[in-house]
This record gives sequence, structure tokens and C-alpha cells, in this order.
Amino acid sequence: MSYQEILEIRTPGRGTINISPEVAAVVSRAGIQTGICHVFVQHTSASLILCENADPQVRSDLERFLVEIVPDGYRMFRHTAEGPDDMPAHVRSILTNMDLSIPVSGGRPALGIWQGIYLYEHRRHAHRRTVTVTVVG
Amino acid sequence: MSYQEILEIRTPGRGTINISPEVAAVVSRAGIQTGICHVFVQHTSASLILCENADPQVRSDLERFLVEIVPDGYRMFRHTAEGPDDMPAHVRSILTNMDLSIPVSGGRPALGIWQGIYLYEHRRHAHRRTVTVTVVG
Amino acid sequence: MSYQEILEIRTPGRGTINISPEVAAVVSRAGIQTGICHVFVQHTSASLILCENADPQVRSDLERFLVEIVPDGYRMFRHTAEGPDDMPAHVRSILTNMDLSIPVSGGRPALGIWQGIYLYEHRRHAHRRTVTVTVVG
Repeated sequence: MSYQEILEIRTPGRGTINISPEVAAVVSRAGIQTGICHVFVQHTSASLILCENADPQVRSDLERFLVEIVPDGYRMFRHTAEGPDDMPAHVRSILTNMDLSIPVSGGRPALGIWQGIYLYEHRRHAHRRTVTVTVVG
Repeated sequence: MSYQEILEIRTPGRGTINISPEVAAVVSRAGIQTGICHVFVQHTSASLILCENADPQVRSDLERFLVEIVPDGYRMFRHTAEGPDDMPAHVRSILTNMDLSIPVSGGRPALGIWQGIYLYEHRRHAHRRTVTVTVVG
Repeated sequence: MSYQEILEIRTPGRGTINISPEVAAVVSRAGIQTGICHVFVQHTSASLILCENADPQVRSDLERFLVEIVPDGYRMFRHTAEGPDDMPAHVRSILTNMDLSIPVSGGRPALGIWQGIYLYEHRRHAHRRTVTVTVVG
């Protein structure tokens, strides 16, 4: 069995958005008790992460870390036509991944208590991002 | 078809633990010949990696690299209430991932000869970690 | 339902190779309309990435970034018997991943318009790499 839905997520610019409720709703509608839930962002400058969901400083610290290792306007980059944040957004997306899979148990995403699923927008401006959720089992 | 088991792994503190035999045993009990084996750690300060399984120095070099790019007590981090190794553990987990999928062929995990599946504990103290293994096919 | 094929890819040394057409062909032969396509490289010094597929400078900038953060001959590394590019290849593979999953929709890989699937060879010399593609749904 397999079930799939496409989510459209509007981002206000760089930062993380908790999409755990939207993903859980798809899993619920799938009606699959045991299996895998695959989440995928159809872009190369946004990514998906599992992150601690209690203290927002964890996500702002993660952002500080990424700014430090892949700064906008990085002197090494030559792909600069789309702006100083474009190439760093590609590298950040590759380091943090565009695909994510979580187990499904008892018809629900089997996340840890402190795990949230976040869409990570890496561009500075607002975007509309497509996320495909597929449940198999 | 889908099959799922939960593993409880005790870690002695920061470092890697080879869980390839435990994962292979779940795949064997699943009785699925061709498919995907999904491994997932239900935490945000431990992760799963595929790593060279012959020379332990590969994993100690990896640890040296992570200590260098995300040091404990990193000056950029503000989420410090749970200790100087907590926020670095979150970043390390995101860089190396909490989810991992491997192919199943002939009823066994189709790893390369030099590939092992390791649970990577990023906190300094001992923990008990939950890992969910799901096989679909 | 599940379907699996093994691809043999020859690499000319360090760099990225677009394997999107090969993966799409496997998905087509699988005859599965909705599901997950899992791609896996059976090695620890090559990886799989989703990357922007229009401007080759994106991939050369990514390479420049990786050379900077994990340089060949890195002073921290002790696993040097197989050459100065071996341990960096292991770290690069772990940071960028050996496994990758993409959704299948309408019998095709549901990649974004700008997303390509690349095999990333991290060793300096030519290699023959095994990639297993599994489709479930």
C-alpha cells in the first residue's frame, strides 16, 4: 500500500517552520498502521530537518552555526548571479538534506518526544515550497 | 508487507556503536526478500551513520573532525542550559542524520563490504537510545 | 510491491556524475505508480546528492566548499595509509550521505525542476561504484 499528498508551504524567508502537524495529518489520512513516511522537498535551496522542538534557541543556534560555516557572500563561491545567499542555500540544503524518512507505528509518525519535523528555508526572501509526503507499508 | 521492531541501545557516552548485527537480525526476522530497511533514532543528540568498518581510526578521525567544526562550549551557542556538549550534539546529529535507509536483497541488508551501521552518541554521558527498524517490501 | 536493480557506475575521479536518467529508467521498469525510490551507494568514499542541475558552477562551488572544510591531508587525520584523500572522502560521504530517497508519482521520480541526482566520487582516482535502486509502493 502507498499513499501520497503534496503540501504547499509558504516561508517568510530564512528560518525553520514546524511541519510535524501537517505530516502527521497525511499519515493519519493514509490509514497505514506500520510503515515508512517519506518527506521530500522539491527544491535545492530549502531542506528538511529533525530538530529539538522545545527550545527555539536550538534552531537559532543551528542557524548561527550555518552562517558561520557557509556565510552568505562566501569568497569561494562563483555561482553568485542569483544573489549572495543562493549558493550558501544550496550547500546548506545538501548538508541538511532534502529528504527525510520517519517510521509509522500505530498509524502515526513515530517521532521521539523531543523531535519535530522542520522545513528549513535557506533563502533570505519568502518562497512557496512544495513538499511531497509518501506513506508506504 | 511491513515489519517493525524497536531496539534499545545503551551507549557509554560519546562515540560510535556498531549496530549492523542487530539491524541484520531484524531484517532476517522480517522475512522480506526485496525492499528497504529504514533505521531511525528517536532522539536529537544521537545519530546514525554508515561508516568504514575495518579501521577504528576512521571513526576516531571522524570524531576529531566533528570536535573541530562543532566544539563543545562553542562561543556561538546560547542553548547551554543542558551543558556545553548539548547544542553541539544537536548540530552533529543534524549534520550526520537521525534516519538511514538501506536496501534489502535476498532477505539481507545489502551493505557494501566496508560499510557498517553505527549509532553515534554525541552526548558525553551514557544514555539509553531507542532505535526503530522498519522493513518494507 | 518492490523492484530492485543494481547500477555499475564508472567514475573518472573526484567529482559529480548525473545519474538521474539511470534512476528514472529503473523507476519506469518497476511499473510502480506511487511510492518511494531508494538509491544507495555501496561504498564509504562516494555519496549521493540532490543538487541544482542547471549551472555546473553550483557543483564546482560545492566541491570548493568541501575542499575547504575537509582538505586532503588534513592535519587531524591519522587514517592515512590509503592516501591523503581517503579519510576526507569518508567524512565527505558521511556529511553528504550514501542513501537517498525520492518520491515516485505517476510512475516517475517526482524531482523538482532544478533537482538532479548525482553520484559524488570523493577519491582522486577513477573507481567503479555500485549503486542499488529499490522502488517500493
